[in-house]
Amino acid sequence: MNISHIEHIGIAVNSIDEAIPYYENMLGLKCYAVEEVADQKVKTAFFMVGDTKIELLESTDPEGPIGKFIEKKGPGVHHLAFAVDNVNDSLAELEEKGVRLIDQKARKGAEGLNIGFLHPKSTMGVLTEICGKE
Amino acid sequence: MNISHIEHIGIAVNSIDEAIPYYENMLGLKCYAVEEVADQKVKTAFFMVGDTKIELLESTDPEGPIGKFIEKKGPGVHHLAFAVDNVNDSLAELEEKGVRLIDQKARKGAEGLNIGFLHPKSTMGVLTEICGKE
Repeated sequence: MNISHIEHIGIAVNSIDEAIPYYENMLGLKCYAVEEVADQKVKTAFFMVGDTKIELLESTDPEGPIGKFIEKKGPGVHHLAFAVDNVNDSLAELEEKGVRLIDQKARKGAEGLNIGFLHPKSTMGVLTEICGKE
Repeated sequence: MNISHIEHIGIAVNSIDEAIPYYENMLGLKCYAVEEVADQKVKTAFFMVGDTKIELLESTDPEGPIGKFIEKKGPGVHHLAFAVDNVNDSLAELEEKGVRLIDQKARKGAEGLNIGFLHPKSTMGVLTEICGKE
């Protein structure tokens, strides 16, 4: 498995409408997309910083994954996503090495990328995603 | 203020000795430095991923900032650091725009960089650092 860079950082926020002005006006970053992902029960907003995206995540349902995360830990970094060449090959390699997986096979995420999540019990407490074009 | 990239991601871990093998053997990243920062009461380990460093932080004192963070939230992402041209100029600009600062002036951080922290009350819950050569 070859990780080329950090593809994105997922950040749980209480309100995207409050968070976008902070990232744009205070930090000087530019929001280039806002998208609702119904099956994940989130509204997302994207910013590019160097090679890495910041993905803001607002829960649309208290029972969704971001709603539960914020209830437990408060707003903050929710997950890190590493860019790899091939997601299925990487998931298989990680499982063989003993990493517990959330996704056994790649599924489609934002922007048409293949994605797969590793379990935080295996990743030193950081919810970790791998993603790639293949 | 011009943010060029994410300079590093600080991750609180229970044990650097347990975390380094995960990052090296599972993710295939290479630890290039281990350093104790006595005044922050942490032991750190660094990995390069694209343009961004992962900085693992193990507390050397339960009363230190990382010890308190882990007690409250568990291991996980502790802070994000954005690379800027000039840290003092950027801190002044942020304060003028209404961002609450932890550091009013730049101080020296790891690798001789100037650093300054913003208060998470002003940054949507994410402890945020800016850093740069100037």
